[in-house]
Amino acid sequence: MTTLKVTIWNEYRHERQNEHVAGIYPRGIHNAIGDYLLQAESVEVTTATLDEPEHGLTDEVLANTDVLLWWGHLAHGEVRDDIVEKVRDRVLDGMGLIVLHSGHASKIFERLLGTKTGTLKWRDDGERERVWVIESGHPIAEGLGDYFEIPKEEMYGERFEIPTPDELVFISWFEGGEVFRSGCTYRRGRGKIFYFRPGHETFPVYHQSEVLKVIGNAVRWAAPTQGAASVAGRTEPIEQIGVSTAK
Amino acid sequence: MTTLKVTIWNEYRHERQNEHVAGIYPRGIHNAIGDYLLQAESVEVTTATLDEPEHGLTDEVLANTDVLLWWGHLAHGEVRDDIVEKVRDRVLDGMGLIVLHSGHASKIFERLLGTKTGTLKWRDDGERERVWVIESGHPIAEGLGDYFEIPKEEMYGERFEIPTPDELVFISWFEGGEVFRSGCTYRRGRGKIFYFRPGHETFPVYHQSEVLKVIGNAVRWAAPTQGAASVAGRTEPIEQIGVSTAK
Amino acid sequence: MTTLKVTIWNEYRHERQNEHVAGIYPRGIHNAIGDYLLQAESVEVTTATLDEPEHGLTDEVLANTDVLLWWGHLAHGEVRDDIVEKVRDRVLDGMGLIVLHSGHASKIFERLLGTKTGTLKWRDDGERERVWVIESGHPIAEGLGDYFEIPKEEMYGERFEIPTPDELVFISWFEGGEVFRSGCTYRRGRGKIFYFRPGHETFPVYHQSEVLKVIGNAVRWAAPTQGAASVAGRTEPIEQIGVSTAK
Amino acid sequence: MTTLKVTIWNEYRHERQNEHVAGIYPRGIHNAIGDYLLQAESVEVTTATLDEPEHGLTDEVLANTDVLLWWGHLAHGEVRDDIVEKVRDRVLDGMGLIVLHSGHASKIFERLLGTKTGTLKWRDDGERERVWVIESGHPIAEGLGDYFEIPKEEMYGERFEIPTPDELVFISWFEGGEVFRSGCTYRRGRGKIFYFRPGHETFPVYHQSEVLKVIGNAVRWAAPTQGAASVAGRTEPIEQIGVSTAK
Repeated sequence: MTTLKVTIWNEYRHERQNEHVAGIYPRGIHNAIGDYLLQAESVEVTTATLDEPEHGLTDEVLANTDVLLWWGHLAHGEVRDDIVEKVRDRVLDGMGLIVLHSGHASKIFERLLGTKTGTLKWRDDGERERVWVIESGHPIAEGLGDYFEIPKEEMYGERFEIPTPDELVFISWFEGGEVFRSGCTYRRGRGKIFYFRPGHETFPVYHQSEVLKVIGNAVRWAAPTQGAASVAGRTEPIEQIGVSTAK
Repeated sequence: MTTLKVTIWNEYRHERQNEHVAGIYPRGIHNAIGDYLLQAESVEVTTATLDEPEHGLTDEVLANTDVLLWWGHLAHGEVRDDIVEKVRDRVLDGMGLIVLHSGHASKIFERLLGTKTGTLKWRDDGERERVWVIESGHPIAEGLGDYFEIPKEEMYGERFEIPTPDELVFISWFEGGEVFRSGCTYRRGRGKIFYFRPGHETFPVYHQSEVLKVIGNAVRWAAPTQGAASVAGRTEPIEQIGVSTAK
Repeated sequence: MTTLKVTIWNEYRHERQNEHVAGIYPRGIHNAIGDYLLQAESVEVTTATLDEPEHGLTDEVLANTDVLLWWGHLAHGEVRDDIVEKVRDRVLDGMGLIVLHSGHASKIFERLLGTKTGTLKWRDDGERERVWVIESGHPIAEGLGDYFEIPKEEMYGERFEIPTPDELVFISWFEGGEVFRSGCTYRRGRGKIFYFRPGHETFPVYHQSEVLKVIGNAVRWAAPTQGAASVAGRTEPIEQIGVSTAK
Repeated sequence: MTTLKVTIWNEYRHERQNEHVAGIYPRGIHNAIGDYLLQAESVEVTTATLDEPEHGLTDEVLANTDVLLWWGHLAHGEVRDDIVEKVRDRVLDGMGLIVLHSGHASKIFERLLGTKTGTLKWRDDGERERVWVIESGHPIAEGLGDYFEIPKEEMYGERFEIPTPDELVFISWFEGGEVFRSGCTYRRGRGKIFYFRPGHETFPVYHQSEVLKVIGNAVRWAAPTQGAASVAGRTEPIEQIGVSTAK
């Protein structure tokens, strides 16, 4: 199996500004996920964060990324538009993209889907979430049961303003009474995108085995495929034009 | 606005065999729905039931139906295969079909969708269901709010073995912890199909205003459209073949 | 039937700069389409063009538009970004949008779909196009036969970089050997979008009856629906949280 | 990489009854495809034909099949219904299914999709087909260019009565003027289905490298995935019911 090059992008502000979050993720959400991927999957892991030069997403890093993970929350607006465009280019050209939790409101997710993806209901009271598998045969659900539970999570509720997903892999049930489309796949250009809802920074969600397993599955699923060569632009006719061939 | 010809098919066994159900629907589920449609929509209503000759679905009735509603539960197996095929022919030719609640396991629903649509989780303990609107702009959701509640219902839970719906209009939350894709649209041939989950016979679900409103909306949505003429079979070439036109 | 408020936006440069185009559309493409709609459909028509103040798309015009048609080609880059955002807001809020021909590369189409919708093959040699109906039962195909032909057209060929359409209504065959997804529907937010390929400015395509019929059908199809009320943002729990209810 | 167990089912009548076809496929279409797969992919190949006992599709063969290929034409009606149901069970349980050319009208394809999949236009005059890649990034298109040509083929034309494919990988252009959705994927239950149009028995289509490459790609794509465990039927509540928890 090929070694996938995974880059994990994290806003990395909560962990440095909030003691409670720092207690859960002392080396940041990016490293919690990265540590799991390194031991569970055939991957090389690079991390990148908002406050690095070019947010850590230089041309070289992007060119060497098969699958990009994205976690952001407080500072979506600080992400540079030119870097968002570069990430978009790479996705349309085949790089996989996994958008996590509050990344739903990121510039890159909204840019690629076109709707106001930040629009949803939410409540960070710490309640039980039960994530139900809808497409049991999907590789992203590999190794799960009918559902898994997260003891305390932020709630996201419908209506979530996204285009109809190509595949709806998970739907969440919340203790407070809401539902949410928690696992959504999209093919855009040559790239594959997966949105995965769980992951509020104040709860240890990225230490939970089912959540990590889904992320690992998604990395494999989102890996680029070679596909077919394609050109665009003005093109000569293949068949002769203007010869009357109508019977 | 044109008057739509609606036929409501009901198995009509529970209401005649069970006093509790008869108390809720003295003239049958079909008439409860029909009475609503007659006062709320521009429709003519015909009813048809399992124990009538040809289940009430003669060629003449089917030819004069724009939208067919289907409620069945106990006796799916008693529905004649030849009549299922006639209904399928009409749907593929443009008749609308609205499948209600336990009609999920009917021959006609499985015949048109191809998967084992009877496969799901269930529990008839009488629990709270909250039906969330997922596609707020959809005509089938017209006049609703973010959600509506049914105080006591049978639970249906995922995984529901259906093809991915063309449009997912509703998702239900259940008190016991499950979720369900409760409003699903499909285009098959020239016809439109809507599956709507609520409606267990032992609860007065078809007396609830939101449920009836959705059924009325769905009848209008499922109405046949004229569309384009189409022929199949062996056809002569439009352009001349065998003249080498390659440049 | 309600009178729909239709606004037809046209770049309106070719017709003022090129005698040949002016000969085909003396009052502009917008008026050729508008004249048809006024006589064939229950509509009020407003026109708007690039070189008017705010491109003719003031807040008042947009607020009073049920369905917006968009034709642009030479000057996509001159359309103001803030006006693109206002159009997007209105579409996500329910306004219909019909994007015509070279509008495939417009800012608004790319903004709403997220991919590089300008990416395709093309050739303006004037060749036969045959538009095949794929969804015969679709209201946008109403009144057509299996196909219709355009004697001379610009070719657009795959691969067209769009998200998978919700519904693929038309596929075109070109004399020079290419194919194209020529009629594509999308639901985005509460709005409906239809892309319709034909319409190069140097051929009298918008004087052809089948093309105009499709545009009229699409206007009716794209009309806003009331749908369901919806709110977003922080929300109180509906069910009590933190009471251990697990059995 | 795991060795996939592929079973190639062929009606195998044309090759035994028609000298011309026998000249092209002396050992049958199944062996032409099987020989390619054996040298190009990591597979074990079993063949099965109509006139074998149980059409060669015993319970043991089916249980040991990861991906089933299906070619039939003259004798769809002779395929036993009980065996069609067994194949359907296996697909819904995760076995991949690749339906080739005239298999569009087979019992199994129609059973799994629900529409009258035999409905299309056709003409066996031997004309040029150009198969265009629509989803360039799809693994089934791997290694192709923008298109490939088949010098002489039977034409299939729209309208093809299928449900909207999950993914539309190929569209064909025909010399005689028609178009066709030639590469269609579906997820049904846990299984993946691919329909691939080319392959009329009187032309050496299954000796052409691009056609074989697509079949090899499709075999890998359709391979079963482990997915998530799932149970159906009556189920106990996970959360306690009937405790009033409404705030």
